[in-house]
Formats: sequence, structure tokens, C-alpha cells
Amino acid sequence: MTKITSTKSETIKRLKRLMTKKGRQETGQFLVEGEHLVDEAIRAGRLVQLIMAESYAPKGTWRLEDMPVLELSDHVADLLSETEKTQGVFAVVKMTPVERKMKKVLVLDRVQDPGNLGTMIRTADAAGFDTVLLGKGTVDPFNAKVVRATQGSLFHVNVTSVDLLEKLPELKEDGFHVYGTALSKATSYEQVAFEDKVALVIGNEAQGVHNDVLSLCDTRVYIPVLGDAESLNAAVAAGILMYRIALQ
Amino acid sequence: MTKITSTKSETIKRLKRLMTKKGRQETGQFLVEGEHLVDEAIRAGRLVQLIMAESYAPKGTWRLEDMPVLELSDHVADLLSETEKTQGVFAVVKMTPVERKMKKVLVLDRVQDPGNLGTMIRTADAAGFDTVLLGKGTVDPFNAKVVRATQGSLFHVNVTSVDLLEKLPELKEDGFHVYGTALSKATSYEQVAFEDKVALVIGNEAQGVHNDVLSLCDTRVYIPVLGDAESLNAAVAAGILMYRIALQ
Repeated sequence: MTKITSTKSETIKRLKRLMTKKGRQETGQFLVEGEHLVDEAIRAGRLVQLIMAESYAPKGTWRLEDMPVLELSDHVADLLSETEKTQGVFAVVKMTPVERKMKKVLVLDRVQDPGNLGTMIRTADAAGFDTVLLGKGTVDPFNAKVVRATQGSLFHVNVTSVDLLEKLPELKEDGFHVYGTALSKATSYEQVAFEDKVALVIGNEAQGVHNDVLSLCDTRVYIPVLGDAESLNAAVAAGILMYRIALQ
Repeated sequence: MTKITSTKSETIKRLKRLMTKKGRQETGQFLVEGEHLVDEAIRAGRLVQLIMAESYAPKGTWRLEDMPVLELSDHVADLLSETEKTQGVFAVVKMTPVERKMKKVLVLDRVQDPGNLGTMIRTADAAGFDTVLLGKGTVDPFNAKVVRATQGSLFHVNVTSVDLLEKLPELKEDGFHVYGTALSKATSYEQVAFEDKVALVIGNEAQGVHNDVLSLCDTRVYIPVLGDAESLNAAVAAGILMYRIALQ
């Protein structure tokens, strides 16, 4: 097992490039941090390399002899961390898409906040949605904050970037009913009988779904605000609607 | 109008103390940042002092002549900001509780993440809940990240810190039905006919509701996970349950 002790090593430079969108796109790989996410990557068969700080005691179920393992001095491992207190374990992971039959699809139009995107992917997984489609202008799903907020659901759900103006007509042709969230000309969600093959479109945190996208939706829905709040957080709104669709 | 140009001024030191929990508790005041939150504070009659960077152009509807206003050089204003790009407008605000008749109450047991707490207060407001009770060990609701995530709902909903082991029995005596979220011995939420006077208990992000608190609940509910996710984000779970209660 190699052990890296210098912060200036070429290996560290290569790994740090995975902390940028460009580096991830060039390699088709991304970096995950923390025992839970590393474990999910291993179980998904997506591990390229396991990376451990010397003070980290690996999870007992991992068969280290079967994996490429890289050991780092603790101060070198700190360079790869994007959390306040690192657990000292990371993995380089393949960006291979998760193959799932499409039936319940969450569609995101320019969602900006990494925590929101990660939480939406996690909730889609929990609500039995199989696919999350990301329109142009949505934050990179392999960004460390997004990956962390998914809590591993990035390995369970098919997350794919698309052009919504091309993809939504295809989905409709394929028998999907497309629901878009909107504030005007919309029906309160609890009065809608959702179809079986569903695409649910959630928009940008401040601006909602773009008009060009909204005009491709079959039905517009909204969540009524009963108090004095101006709106709901986008990830909470997505959760309320996905669970309504899943359990109606 | 006074204008502060030195980062070392006593006024700045006083304002910076409001960025700490101790400073807020000693003064009964907190700091909000951004035009929307400042506007909410003014409309709620809670403004102590309006603070503007010299480059900030105040919102046209504000009657500046009726308010104590403090102007700061831009580089001084930066010291008060907890956002990446400050709008350059702040307010010192009174911690006065919002008085609301209690009927729909969200109860939080040791919620740790400021974004989650703020989002839950915002969602409680949207779902028509009037009160959010915070048990010991919950993050300070006047923390800047919490305040920002509430998007102003902190001024609409009664947010109060309590001892849950004392408060839940009082609520029950007062006719509230207390629902606790739990993974075992619990009923799926969509099979529950929620009572009219509701207290809904949401727990810590990793550990859920403490057993001592759970034993005071009348009914245990859970949100089923249909996919491969291990759990839901706490703020999303709270949103799904509050909207179910509000619109059942």
C-alpha cells in the first residue's frame, strides 16, 4: 500500500482536480467523503480507489485486499476534505449512470442550491422515483455538497443532465404525464389525481419553472400557502409533491 | 445620520456581539441581513436600528425619517455579513415573541442543522402552523443561518424555547393530540386521521426523537421509504407531515 506524505505529490494534485467540475468531466470520476458514502460506492460497484487517512480505521465489512487503496498522512487527507471535521475516508468513484426503468421522474429546471439538489435526489429515492433529470443551469450533481446531501441516493437513482425542451416532448410521447409547478393557472396539488407515469417539474428557487418549460407541461400544480410565508423551500415543495404522487 | 468608517468602532463591536448567541441573549436583540428580512422586521414593528452600507439604495417604501438609521462604509458593512455577497443592508431587531393562539404546533427535539431549523419554521408558517417549540439542544433560532433560511417566517410564527418534558404534558392537558415521528411501533402517516389541535414532534437529524419525549406522545407516525434511501431529510419530513395535517 502506497502512503502519501507530501501535500505537493502528483497524486494529490490529481485528486484535487476531482474537486472541480472540469476535473470531474475530464476524468468521468468524482470524489466522495465519509464512511457512509464510500460504503455506498463500494456496494454499487463504482469504486475506483479507496483513500484513507492514516488515523482512519476502515469499516470491518470492506475487503481491503480486493481494492486499490491509497493511504495519506492526516494533514494530506485534510486537503481533500470539504467538511468541518473529516472522517478521513474518501473514494474516487466512476460517474457511470444508474440504469433504472423510467416511470416516476423528477425534473429540475435550474435548481441552484447544492443542498437543495442533494436533498431532492435523496427524497426522490425515498419516494420511489427512479429518475432525476437535470435541465441546463442546474448545479453539478457531482459537486461535493450535492453528493453529501444525497446521503448515497446518487447511487440508487438515475441522475442525468438533459435539454428539457427536447426531453419533455419525448417523455410525453412515451406516455408520461408532465406536471409543472406554477403559481398561476394551476390546480392545488391535493385536488389532482396524478397519473401513473409521472414527470414532475420543479423550478429555480427564486424564479420557479421557466415559461418555455412550463408551456410543455400537461398540468400545472401548486402547493397552497396557508400562513404568511411567501413560498416554500424548493426541496420541501418537491418532497410534498413526490410523496403525494407516491402515496395518493 | 451617523456614518461609521472604522472597523474598530465601538458601535461595530456592539453589532458584532449580536453575531454570537451570548451577545443576543444579553441584549434581547438579533441581527438580520438582506432587504427582504429587514423589510419583514420593519413591518413587524420589531426594528431597533436600520443599518446600511453607503452603496446600498434603500427600498422605496421605507420611511427612513421615522427610523434610527446607521450608515457604514462598505468595508465596515462587510464585517457584519454572513453571506457571500452582501446586499449591504441589516437591521438590529427585538427578540419579542410573536403572539399566536396555539392550535397547530411544531415541536422540535434537538434539531442541529441551522438550515433545517430555518426551513422548518418557514414551512410551519406556510402550512398554517402557529407555533414552533424548540426543546433543549436545538440550534439557536436567532443564529444568522437559521434567520436567513426562515425567509421572514420568524416574524410570523411564535418560536419559543421550552423544556419538552414539561411542555408536552401541558399541551396534552390543554387538549392537544401529540404525534411523534418514530421508526418502530408507528403508523404510516397517510393512514392517520389527525386531530384538530395538533402537536407534531420532529427529532434530531441522526437520532430522531428521544425516547423520553416519544413516551409522552399519544400517537407515533412514520413516513414510509419506498426506495433505497435510508431516511428523509428532517426538514422535508416535517414538510410532508405538516402539509398532510393541514390539508387532510
